[in-house]
Amino acid sequence: MQRHFDQDLAGLKDRLLTMASHTENAVAMAIKALRERDDKLALQVKESDTTLDQSEIEIDEMCINLLALKAPIAADLRLITMAMRITQNLERVGDEATKIAKRVLDLNREPPLKPLVDVPRMASLATEMLRGSLDAFVRGDTALARSSILRDSEVDALNKQLHRELVSFMVEDPKTITRSLNLMVISKSLERIADHATNIAEDTIYLYEGRDVRHLPKTQGPLAGAPPTQPNP
Amino acid sequence: MQRHFDQDLAGLKDRLLTMASHTENAVAMAIKALRERDDKLALQVKESDTTLDQSEIEIDEMCINLLALKAPIAADLRLITMAMRITQNLERVGDEATKIAKRVLDLNREPPLKPLVDVPRMASLATEMLRGSLDAFVRGDTALARSSILRDSEVDALNKQLHRELVSFMVEDPKTITRSLNLMVISKSLERIADHATNIAEDTIYLYEGRDVRHLPKTQGPLAGAPPTQPNP
Repeated sequence: MQRHFDQDLAGLKDRLLTMASHTENAVAMAIKALRERDDKLALQVKESDTTLDQSEIEIDEMCINLLALKAPIAADLRLITMAMRITQNLERVGDEATKIAKRVLDLNREPPLKPLVDVPRMASLATEMLRGSLDAFVRGDTALARSSILRDSEVDALNKQLHRELVSFMVEDPKTITRSLNLMVISKSLERIADHATNIAEDTIYLYEGRDVRHLPKTQGPLAGAPPTQPNP
Repeated sequence: MQRHFDQDLAGLKDRLLTMASHTENAVAMAIKALRERDDKLALQVKESDTTLDQSEIEIDEMCINLLALKAPIAADLRLITMAMRITQNLERVGDEATKIAKRVLDLNREPPLKPLVDVPRMASLATEMLRGSLDAFVRGDTALARSSILRDSEVDALNKQLHRELVSFMVEDPKTITRSLNLMVISKSLERIADHATNIAEDTIYLYEGRDVRHLPKTQGPLAGAPPTQPNP
């Protein structure tokens, strides 16, 4: 019985990893569409969002069925409810990728504003965080979850820096306003993707260490180290 | 046994309603702080976010305990997992209120940009939607959930209109750029609050009618009417 259930949980984790890799892919495609000014690719991102929406629904159903049929307790129960939180986060990452793709279509109507350096850097940081958080969840590796959270401030800093730069463009030349606003939205979307990765990493730490680090100040937060306590069942 | 469980569920619904009313209150305070240029009130919003974060954690624990101790199935199981999704949405509404409050503090450093008409209108629409969605969830009233979703396009339209207006300010006078950007963020936050209310309403329709309307195109979406089928257990 337990062995069968372990297989179910392994299957659930596989589905989550697959959804995460589709999500990562959507973000990567959106950024490629931005760099290469490729409308067709941007439209593909919008289409791929349907697959992600469907994955969310299917994984949620899988979780509900596991809860109903196996009535798990303690760690297994928490793992399944966390999986449902994770699908919601991944689905929203997919929404952000779509939002980026829409802005790319807008940006492609005008000449490029500036060489893109920070945006691809933010994108690769955010998707690395996402991959790290998911691997941490699946493997129960809270050290990896912590290292994923650590990078969030890098993404925040890049977003702020780009925001300042774009404001100065706008002030100097009002003709750049529309393009600057589009790039600001893209930058903000990437920052939000990093936030979703952070949510998943925080949930993972809670799941495996029983410490809720979701809303702690930085000094007591997820990076402050944790005693190896167990969650209350 | 079932009677005791019904009391538990009623208790859970009460907790959600209380959290929702604190959330609504945070949004109302943030908008009052904006209208009255009141730094002190804006700071209070930021403080109240801690209470919301704590509520999310407590309601989630309540749900986990109900799942572990009562092993509910079918409709009750779905209700509890939906409650966990709702807390996540409410917590994020609280985050948006905090974001608004921070922008208010920024805006109060400069003279007012324009008379605020659309923003309070958007805020009351978004909080009405939130209240409607929560009442719909608690009472199982899917007609109310649908009427809540219907208002989302009003909020979207107001956001777009304000965005256009603010772009024209920026183009005409670069000195308005910082203030315009702050107002854009506030407007976007309100639009996102309406999205969270929509999420809750869509989940409610799914819970009580068994139709997943989360990612359907508008023609087949939550407003297209629904046969009274039951969710699969």
